[in-house]
Amino acid sequence: MRSLAWKNGHLTILDQTKLPNIIEFIETDDYRRVADAIRRLEVRGAPAIGAAAAFGLVLGAKEAALTVNDFWIKLLAISEELRQTRPTAVNLFWAIDRMMSVASRYAPGDSPIELISALEQEAIDISKEDAQVNSRISAYGASLFADRQAVLTHCNAGALATVEFGTALGVIRRAWTEGKISRVYADETRPLLQGARLTAWELMQEGIPVTLITDSMAGWVMKQGMVQAVIVGADRIALNGDVANKIGTYSVAVLAKQHGIPFYVAAPVSTFDFTITGGEQIPIEERKAEEVTSLGGCRIAPEGTTVFNPAFDVTPHAFISAIITEHGILREPYQPAIAKLKLMKGGND
Amino acid sequence: MRSLAWKNGHLTILDQTKLPNIIEFIETDDYRRVADAIRRLEVRGAPAIGAAAAFGLVLGAKEAALTVNDFWIKLLAISEELRQTRPTAVNLFWAIDRMMSVASRYAPGDSPIELISALEQEAIDISKEDAQVNSRISAYGASLFADRQAVLTHCNAGALATVEFGTALGVIRRAWTEGKISRVYADETRPLLQGARLTAWELMQEGIPVTLITDSMAGWVMKQGMVQAVIVGADRIALNGDVANKIGTYSVAVLAKQHGIPFYVAAPVSTFDFTITGGEQIPIEERKAEEVTSLGGCRIAPEGTTVFNPAFDVTPHAFISAIITEHGILREPYQPAIAKLKLMKGGND
Repeated sequence: MRSLAWKNGHLTILDQTKLPNIIEFIETDDYRRVADAIRRLEVRGAPAIGAAAAFGLVLGAKEAALTVNDFWIKLLAISEELRQTRPTAVNLFWAIDRMMSVASRYAPGDSPIELISALEQEAIDISKEDAQVNSRISAYGASLFADRQAVLTHCNAGALATVEFGTALGVIRRAWTEGKISRVYADETRPLLQGARLTAWELMQEGIPVTLITDSMAGWVMKQGMVQAVIVGADRIALNGDVANKIGTYSVAVLAKQHGIPFYVAAPVSTFDFTITGGEQIPIEERKAEEVTSLGGCRIAPEGTTVFNPAFDVTPHAFISAIITEHGILREPYQPAIAKLKLMKGGND
Repeated sequence: MRSLAWKNGHLTILDQTKLPNIIEFIETDDYRRVADAIRRLEVRGAPAIGAAAAFGLVLGAKEAALTVNDFWIKLLAISEELRQTRPTAVNLFWAIDRMMSVASRYAPGDSPIELISALEQEAIDISKEDAQVNSRISAYGASLFADRQAVLTHCNAGALATVEFGTALGVIRRAWTEGKISRVYADETRPLLQGARLTAWELMQEGIPVTLITDSMAGWVMKQGMVQAVIVGADRIALNGDVANKIGTYSVAVLAKQHGIPFYVAAPVSTFDFTITGGEQIPIEERKAEEVTSLGGCRIAPEGTTVFNPAFDVTPHAFISAIITEHGILREPYQPAIAKLKLMKGGND
């Protein structure tokens, strides 16, 4: 099941808010609908958001081209609108930067047709590269696992969070085929339950044994010796190795350290933000209270309850055993390793 | 709002599974319905379970008295049935032991009428004492708080978990009236959401500022410096100070230690199990998968998902800054302090 697909100038997005109960697709040629899909988490996961935004920009460029004189102003405005859909995952900005860099090669007087075609090719490349990158991450990551380990993951860094295969779940998939995984413990990941709805679903489809737990059970599962490793994805990684990821990741990292369990992060280079030196500089999106006070249309807290609903947290690098990228496995000290990564193709700066 | 009330030989139980959306009472004179209410968590919280079981035994004794010859056999069977409703909270066994000890003062030939009256009085005493005990716990506990602290709690150890006032929430209530609490962060406490449904509701009714968070946010809230103390209740405390409490408590304790935040447990002497030397001997109830895979009738995970659903976990004493009882505040080394507590009235042995 792919998170998104591009065909004949239309973007098809698998609506992840309705999974696993309903499999429904959003098909659109309107960049506004793509922006909405990102805002509403119909498409989510840092790499998938990046790819969706790239295709969104292609659709936006087509619309801008209809008004010849304002093309560049419109294109810039559309790129800004797409940028502002979500603040934390840096792949969004990376993808839009990459697209706009292609656009910048064209002069104001050039025909937008050629430009649009180049943008379309770039978006397709971003999408294809993501699959290749995940395959490399998975191979590196699998090398970290020993025979028949149980692994815990938080949120969904699977095929649904990327274009294909997944980062953290990609590693799990690959390690599973190599006989190195006995079972996956999936944190349900409140408030939006990406673990229960998406990770459990993805793994069950492939016959990988998965046990669903509430987020509050992770510590007890570790204490009971039920897991030997933790692996998660990332939404933004700072130069020093601090990792922003789905809320609750930090708690899992602290618990893993307490129990001497390795805590791995799997992420492509496009998730690194080389412009910031530490995690405290990463903007953390706060989402609406209803995500916490309701579930599936059922109100689960009293009317008028005050809520704190950060969508992400930051795990300091000291809690991270290794960061798995398509260029290899990074370990402490992260700063020089990440600085070197910056020199390679694909980073944010 | 009282969790239960006894009037004219009927037990009235506030159905906590329906809160906060629906306020509904179960009125019964059948001990089986009381047993069901405990099993289904319509009444929950260690002290409330103890009191409910005590009244359940009064109702059972009345029924047993209808068949004169089998009275003692029936009473024993009923006490066993009540004992087996839930395995972890020791107050249940403490209350039934106390009731059966009253019964044991009567000879097989004695009139059951007098015995039933004595049992009724004992159940009323257990219930009244609980309110007094909570008041003393709250006064001791409030002394641990400094001016205007934000405190985090997990699950519900409030009036609803007891007969009146509460243990951990009792301390918070008292500290609030003394101007020592600025805000309460309530973990929602999946799977059954006692934090969202009960704790937030109790605190909002009294105008105590409360912010609801998902369990996964506790670590991040601590990391951001938003709370200065944690306080929870308990379901069973071993001789060495290990504490069984609602699943997720252990994670919160590890996180509190990591952030240098004091972690307090508030519990009456009836929650101590003097027969066991460590937490590893506490039986942990596992409940059905549907509690995790569904919520308010909505399915939130794929059909057939494997689930691990322990209702409690054990926090080792090393993570506990103090245990607040009606006889004072216990600190490390817990073993001698708890052994001394055993000599006082009301303990399990």
